[in-house]
Amino acid sequence: MVNTAVILAGGMGTRLHERTKNKPKGFLEIDNKPIVEESILKLLEIGIEQIVIGTGYLAEVYDHLAMRYPQVLCVRNNDYMKTGSMYTLYNLRERVSDDFLLLESDLIYEKQALEELIKLKESDVILASQFTNSNDEVFIETDENHLLVNLSKNRNDLNHIHAELTGITKISVHTLQILCDFAKSSFSENPQLDYESALAGISKQVNIYVHKLNNFVWCEIDNEQHLLRAVNYIYPMIKLKEKNFPFVKRNILLNPGPATTTDTVKYAQVVPDICPREEEFGDVMQMISTKLTALVANSNNYSTVLFGGSGTAAVESILSSVISEDAVLIINNGAYGKRMCQIADAYKLNYIEFQSSPYEALDLVSLEDIISSSKFSHLCIVHNETTTGLLNDISLVGHLCEKYQIQLIVDAMSSYGAIPIDLDSMNISYLAASSNKNLQGMAGVAFVIARTKDLETTQHLHPRNFYLHLYSQYKYFSKTKQMRFTPPVQTLYALKQAIIETRLEGVEKRYKRYTEAWETLIKGITRLGLKHLVKKENHSRIITAIVEPTIPNYDFEDMHKYFYRNGFTIYPGKLDGQNTFRVANIGAITNMDMNLFIKLLEQYLINIGYCTEGNEMNGISKT
Amino acid sequence: MVNTAVILAGGMGTRLHERTKNKPKGFLEIDNKPIVEESILKLLEIGIEQIVIGTGYLAEVYDHLAMRYPQVLCVRNNDYMKTGSMYTLYNLRERVSDDFLLLESDLIYEKQALEELIKLKESDVILASQFTNSNDEVFIETDENHLLVNLSKNRNDLNHIHAELTGITKISVHTLQILCDFAKSSFSENPQLDYESALAGISKQVNIYVHKLNNFVWCEIDNEQHLLRAVNYIYPMIKLKEKNFPFVKRNILLNPGPATTTDTVKYAQVVPDICPREEEFGDVMQMISTKLTALVANSNNYSTVLFGGSGTAAVESILSSVISEDAVLIINNGAYGKRMCQIADAYKLNYIEFQSSPYEALDLVSLEDIISSSKFSHLCIVHNETTTGLLNDISLVGHLCEKYQIQLIVDAMSSYGAIPIDLDSMNISYLAASSNKNLQGMAGVAFVIARTKDLETTQHLHPRNFYLHLYSQYKYFSKTKQMRFTPPVQTLYALKQAIIETRLEGVEKRYKRYTEAWETLIKGITRLGLKHLVKKENHSRIITAIVEPTIPNYDFEDMHKYFYRNGFTIYPGKLDGQNTFRVANIGAITNMDMNLFIKLLEQYLINIGYCTEGNEMNGISKT
Repeated sequence: MVNTAVILAGGMGTRLHERTKNKPKGFLEIDNKPIVEESILKLLEIGIEQIVIGTGYLAEVYDHLAMRYPQVLCVRNNDYMKTGSMYTLYNLRERVSDDFLLLESDLIYEKQALEELIKLKESDVILASQFTNSNDEVFIETDENHLLVNLSKNRNDLNHIHAELTGITKISVHTLQILCDFAKSSFSENPQLDYESALAGISKQVNIYVHKLNNFVWCEIDNEQHLLRAVNYIYPMIKLKEKNFPFVKRNILLNPGPATTTDTVKYAQVVPDICPREEEFGDVMQMISTKLTALVANSNNYSTVLFGGSGTAAVESILSSVISEDAVLIINNGAYGKRMCQIADAYKLNYIEFQSSPYEALDLVSLEDIISSSKFSHLCIVHNETTTGLLNDISLVGHLCEKYQIQLIVDAMSSYGAIPIDLDSMNISYLAASSNKNLQGMAGVAFVIARTKDLETTQHLHPRNFYLHLYSQYKYFSKTKQMRFTPPVQTLYALKQAIIETRLEGVEKRYKRYTEAWETLIKGITRLGLKHLVKKENHSRIITAIVEPTIPNYDFEDMHKYFYRNGFTIYPGKLDGQNTFRVANIGAITNMDMNLFIKLLEQYLINIGYCTEGNEMNGISKT
Repeated sequence: MVNTAVILAGGMGTRLHERTKNKPKGFLEIDNKPIVEESILKLLEIGIEQIVIGTGYLAEVYDHLAMRYPQVLCVRNNDYMKTGSMYTLYNLRERVSDDFLLLESDLIYEKQALEELIKLKESDVILASQFTNSNDEVFIETDENHLLVNLSKNRNDLNHIHAELTGITKISVHTLQILCDFAKSSFSENPQLDYESALAGISKQVNIYVHKLNNFVWCEIDNEQHLLRAVNYIYPMIKLKEKNFPFVKRNILLNPGPATTTDTVKYAQVVPDICPREEEFGDVMQMISTKLTALVANSNNYSTVLFGGSGTAAVESILSSVISEDAVLIINNGAYGKRMCQIADAYKLNYIEFQSSPYEALDLVSLEDIISSSKFSHLCIVHNETTTGLLNDISLVGHLCEKYQIQLIVDAMSSYGAIPIDLDSMNISYLAASSNKNLQGMAGVAFVIARTKDLETTQHLHPRNFYLHLYSQYKYFSKTKQMRFTPPVQTLYALKQAIIETRLEGVEKRYKRYTEAWETLIKGITRLGLKHLVKKENHSRIITAIVEPTIPNYDFEDMHKYFYRNGFTIYPGKLDGQNTFRVANIGAITNMDMNLFIKLLEQYLINIGYCTEGNEMNGISKT
């Protein structure tokens, strides 16, 4: 049982400038507590009895801390300005007589990782993580047995990158001796040697196991950007995960939203009761609005307006609030384009419907013909048609609108948060989306992102409704940081967490993950003899309408039940004149989930006699 | 340490008729598991090693169960038809050589109670609970040391009722001996003696401690009504509580909703992801709709229509969807009456505003004058005006409407779920309310309860909007058990739990609890020299507008911060021309919370020099 820890805390943290002028990096505070103290508490909680801190820069601050913790012993490296972390470790070696955990002082992390590290039977282990893209990472190369080969900050130094170094390591007292011997012989040449390079240096002598955790929440704080990320994203995630909530049964939702969510988003709904007119809650909504804008636009030009309601409420808010008596053009190439027409009907808007095939790319020439033949104030389009997965090229349409001075309204329900959008360059005036699709939050919040100057001009129009009146909602929030009417408080907390997780993953990476799952889906159904409707080049890669098998044994309800029993939810089609079912690939799912889906689908198709093992099709549609 | 349990399971359960024809009561199933087996598992989980079951009626069913649990021993009472539970216990006495837990076979309960019972130092303990009003209760009288004096099903037999018997008891082996001696001497006279009466019989010889748990979730199942309650309310609550979620910091919200919620409602939001178009979720919404209707009306005549949105959305849904070109009358005696006028303005409805004082009772004579002078299709009124707490007498207004054949629309946001309402007898056509006030659920769901035949006639009106169109939302749900647009899934799960808890408490009891807190508030502020606006006889007892102190040191923001720091949220006023602040007394709060609030208020008023210790007022308003 490991009961000793060593914290390396000699460095000057120069990249944090003023922040580390009067205190070492470990004393940066999050939630009013020095991060190194948080680390010490975690070590004590898991049963560590002795903590040796290798100090240097402003060592007296650590000495002061040690007075409060009898378990802490500080060993000062007086040459901290000329040496590196390896020398700080070397300098305290005589105080360590047992196997130990080695940590850097500027880390925040989930406690659970320490517990896991201690339990591993291997005595020398580097704790590694998935790639964090935090900048300044140390990459790790391992052999086929996950033993350390090399590590470097430079990807090109390595043959194969397995994981990322976290700065948490378990080292046996025997290996410490080898490490110190190696270091001693290196100091003359390289006094600034860091401990991780020394580990690489002895990797041929000693088996150092690299243990990779795939959902490990942690970060190191070396610069301002790291600190920002730590405070806003990493620390809140750690806090949530450490509450030790029980896991929630994982369902894979392949319907086009609400999507599969993480447990952290689920539990983010559980907060102490709060009155939504409190400043504290205003800050939450402010953060949400600002970050939602930032995902697709420059906040100087655009504003996000939040509503309690479904995505349709946001679309209706735009259509009912920003259009005058002037004519508008609505593009209908699926159920959601049609829905905009229905909304326009309810409000008796002066609109022209531009119908287009639900599986073919929009004909921009005909579109321009219409546009140029008449005066339109607004053009309305769905970005990713959930009906089929058809992706409309809003960038090209935006350019057309620019040419004819038309304000563009985009229903981005099924694209926002995954497919890159840039409102400025695409010349979009209004975008509608919701909390529960690619954002991976809970249903109940819809939002409009509006070009502020366009929205401001709508204040003079007579409102057509009350709850969904866009300008009033915008103005009230600008003034008060409150929604006009009671907001869905807990759903907004979940959305905040979902945004944090979206930003941690990054929209581009999320779309890449979705795309991989989609490729697996397409490859799988094609192998099984099923066809999808929209060509790859026009496809959103988010939701796919698949043509139903035309054999008598096939029954959608049956297939749905079969998948439901297996924890997967699929979705019926929504297309006139073509029998389809739909599979979406959004939410907190991975390629592995989609692989499993394809396996289940294969089994189902075999069961109904549509294909046989080895995927020979039997059915009518084979011909 | 207690490691033995005895379960009394000899009875015939005749009140459950057919259900107990082929199996004893303990084998009633909830969630596909016999309730006695659930009980056995709980006993084993807390460390009980031997379970003796006293069987009788259909004893072989228990013998069969015992084969699966080596810890279980069945002892048959062959005379079960002629004897009572005490004889069943007497009959197995020789198999019990240690202190033990005694349970009835027809109980469902939280496991935690067993753990608590075992830990108590007293060796003879009756586990008692708050009053459940479940019918068929056994009441307990104790002395000042909480020792058993007597118990009875008849309240009048007792001098003082302390608690309710649960059917879970801890008995020492010594006391068992005394109990059996007592029983033996009683059997000739009363062979049907039950064990609880025997306990009362020996209460002068032995100290039997009565341990009362105030939030204990449990029930006994003796009849159909009990079973229904067990399946729908008690069992789901137990399941939720047993997940051992950490407590959430308790804030006391004295704003007029969203209100303080229970932890069980908070955690009810955490569910496995589900697509809201699934049948399983349709059942959840169906249950919600049905129960919401049942709280105020006969389901044959009324239908509940759910929306994702705030309460205002529900009011707007009614006003925009059910009114034709005919004139309507809107009563405005506060901010929410005014809001209905604003909605009518947005839709350009043909309406007359009837203004009335926000603190005086409605003048029904003038109202009738207006009504009789012109033809109105609808009359709109707020039940409990959140602005001041003024309660409009909707029953009298309903009768007026009946006389003049006007459809009555009621905004019951701040009354539904507490103040009794009966739509039928009050002649109300449409009622609007929301999830987050007296229902004690989370914000995000609004609903309309409509007289179905009136709602059906609105299908011919041209819709004025889309998302909030009442008839479409109603019709779609009737056909599909789905909302037209993505509903706030998790908020609906919370609402389901909130409804369960509302029905468990009962609307009348809830209003009584609120009223007690209100009386404490009024008594408190009056003692401190503060005045409220609305007279008692016109007051809703739900929200109170209090006149602000007129001394220079007083500042609402200051006072608000002071309370906020102490975990209480108060609310600003919303009345033109009169400076008030508001205190609501709704949500999962008790009289004790309000007492604490008054203490804090007193301290604040002393701090600012408005009154002194002992409550002499210093301020200007004293005169």
